[in-house]
Amino acid sequence: MTEPAPGPGPRPGSPARFEVLVPPPGGEGTRARLGRLELPHGVVETPQFMPVGTNATVKALDPADLEEAGASIILANTYHLYLRPGHQRIARLGGLHRFMAWDHPILTDSGGFQVVSLGDLRKIDDDGVTFQSHLDGSYHRFTPEHSIAVQEALGADIAVAFDQPVPPASTSRAEVARATERTHRWAERSLAAHSRPDQALFGIIQGGLDPQLRGESTAFMTSLPFEGICIGGLAGDETAEQRAAALDVAVGLLEKDRRPRYLMGLGSPADLLEAVNLGVDMFDSVLPARVARNGQLWVPGGKINIRNAQFQDDARPVQEGCRCILCRRFSRAYLAHLFRAEELLAYRLATCHNMVFTLDFMAEIRSALRSGTFDARLPQLRAYAQLSRPGASAVQSE
Amino acid sequence: MTEPAPGPGPRPGSPARFEVLVPPPGGEGTRARLGRLELPHGVVETPQFMPVGTNATVKALDPADLEEAGASIILANTYHLYLRPGHQRIARLGGLHRFMAWDHPILTDSGGFQVVSLGDLRKIDDDGVTFQSHLDGSYHRFTPEHSIAVQEALGADIAVAFDQPVPPASTSRAEVARATERTHRWAERSLAAHSRPDQALFGIIQGGLDPQLRGESTAFMTSLPFEGICIGGLAGDETAEQRAAALDVAVGLLEKDRRPRYLMGLGSPADLLEAVNLGVDMFDSVLPARVARNGQLWVPGGKINIRNAQFQDDARPVQEGCRCILCRRFSRAYLAHLFRAEELLAYRLATCHNMVFTLDFMAEIRSALRSGTFDARLPQLRAYAQLSRPGASAVQSE
Repeated sequence: MTEPAPGPGPRPGSPARFEVLVPPPGGEGTRARLGRLELPHGVVETPQFMPVGTNATVKALDPADLEEAGASIILANTYHLYLRPGHQRIARLGGLHRFMAWDHPILTDSGGFQVVSLGDLRKIDDDGVTFQSHLDGSYHRFTPEHSIAVQEALGADIAVAFDQPVPPASTSRAEVARATERTHRWAERSLAAHSRPDQALFGIIQGGLDPQLRGESTAFMTSLPFEGICIGGLAGDETAEQRAAALDVAVGLLEKDRRPRYLMGLGSPADLLEAVNLGVDMFDSVLPARVARNGQLWVPGGKINIRNAQFQDDARPVQEGCRCILCRRFSRAYLAHLFRAEELLAYRLATCHNMVFTLDFMAEIRSALRSGTFDARLPQLRAYAQLSRPGASAVQSE
Repeated sequence: MTEPAPGPGPRPGSPARFEVLVPPPGGEGTRARLGRLELPHGVVETPQFMPVGTNATVKALDPADLEEAGASIILANTYHLYLRPGHQRIARLGGLHRFMAWDHPILTDSGGFQVVSLGDLRKIDDDGVTFQSHLDGSYHRFTPEHSIAVQEALGADIAVAFDQPVPPASTSRAEVARATERTHRWAERSLAAHSRPDQALFGIIQGGLDPQLRGESTAFMTSLPFEGICIGGLAGDETAEQRAAALDVAVGLLEKDRRPRYLMGLGSPADLLEAVNLGVDMFDSVLPARVARNGQLWVPGGKINIRNAQFQDDARPVQEGCRCILCRRFSRAYLAHLFRAEELLAYRLATCHNMVFTLDFMAEIRSALRSGTFDARLPQLRAYAQLSRPGASAVQSE
């Protein structure tokens, strides 16, 4: 175990304690690191993936499924819970942990991503965002102060500052600059508004793909006493190379920062691995669950689409040796049948599998970091995580 | 334990062994009895309710959910599995038990109810039924021989003779008579076609509501060496009084018969209780699961519709003290939220609850029979099971 790195860090008495257990070796090699984030409801080993429970439920799973899959922290969406069932109702019912019967860490996002993604349904000004509910068209307004109030009512272990993300590749530099500047003001207001002592607050770096803007935003956010640093405005319409370049700028400036780094919105095992390699600690995405509900199952080195005809007669498990409830008990043929019959069990079993695949992959990454073999095992980990490499067709059509 | 009653019984070497452990007291009182049915995949205590797994899955549940709910035998639908994924495919994959990962008893129906219910999509003659698939309009033909062949391929513990049920209250006596006569010929042909030694075969009494036809059909079916006697053509459009009268005729003639009695298609806890009281041992219905998916939760003495507005703020469990996964972990408010958000978890939790409610109610009935207190406890059991009595509004609107 090493001492926390010197440099900027969270406010004193923080409800989030982060330690880097195995720092990167330094030099030109990997920036991947093993860490441990202690939160009011439990410990999160990093690098870590957070399943997304949009409506206070990870779609198709119950909390026992998540525990069995190995989830240690989940994300819930402030925008969705604010609209339905309402943050005040959840507060009256004892908070989000009790409401959804998840007694482990939770992170809520700020609602920023959802409300600025509403297109014609929202209007952004320097003070906040006015938007119409996607459910009933009713009008609402989110400001940094209101986002924090909603998140304090929900009571997650980690809240996130209100921000204005923009699609990184298709937004002009001037627009990125304006949104980033606004995000900085909102970060200060979020910090000022936040008062719940048992809840950590993370700030969000923006800055798009422009190295200067990304660097300025990183420097600005790290100057504030957040408990963690989100890297926002990525996992959007950028290429893998553009994302890596932006991460290189941000993480390069975070080298001496002692806080966890959370890249919002990733993703596939291959994307997670590359981002870990670039120094990211935490991730969230709906991807494993969403593609599972469409019949896409992740397996080592590739993926299978269980709707393909050949699986109707395939007596093998989706993944030999997998510990998930799908692979332990059922055949590909049975899952193929459930999908064709549109049976509800299909979605739960497929989601359990992709979640176990993703979380076990992160555990494998942590194991390599712990033993100091991450760099050496990187080619093997890349081959395992590759869902869409050209050679993967052998698995896809097996 | 008592000796099996004398009288007609199953063929020698039957894979189904039924014992009446506590016979009815005789006289004018209850005909309810406690029994034990030993099948190749396990023992079924009677009276018993069989959850329906139409497509080789009880909707929204996995086999562990069913085991935890206390299910000891489930029903699967021959018509549906014949069309999709196909009985021969299931046979190639090792049979229905392995296919759906349910290593306990299964009963398959004959497909008769489904194919004769297809309306304009089917044509019945004395040899069998020609029908169009509800999935793709393709043409198929079921005869007694084909129904048995499909059921032998599926490999359930219990197969059922092919029959022609008719809506009991809205069918003319002549039509009932013709369908009943046809059912008798098909019963003989089903018996002759059936050869799988590890599978029991039950015959089905028809006869509608006419005491003479019902009596003749009962006498005819009991003269054949089936392993169990289904009471068909009820749980349809008849009143409770009409059903009781038909049951009285059938069970009266079955008094000395040593086989289990299975009333097809019931139903609600109140209906189950009355049929047990009239001497029935086994039941099946989609009702507990279907109403659960619509948000109707069964509780002692009534039911609640979780979609009603007041439950959004109700922190209590659906049923205090209930052992199901819904009531152990979650509030009414959370379930109300899941239903409003159309989250998949809602359907599983609600189904688990109604299944536990139904199966625990049957266990309570068996306990009363075992201790000889069934007659004395009947008023209390009726109050517990009453889902729609006038006074239940207190619970419905609580």
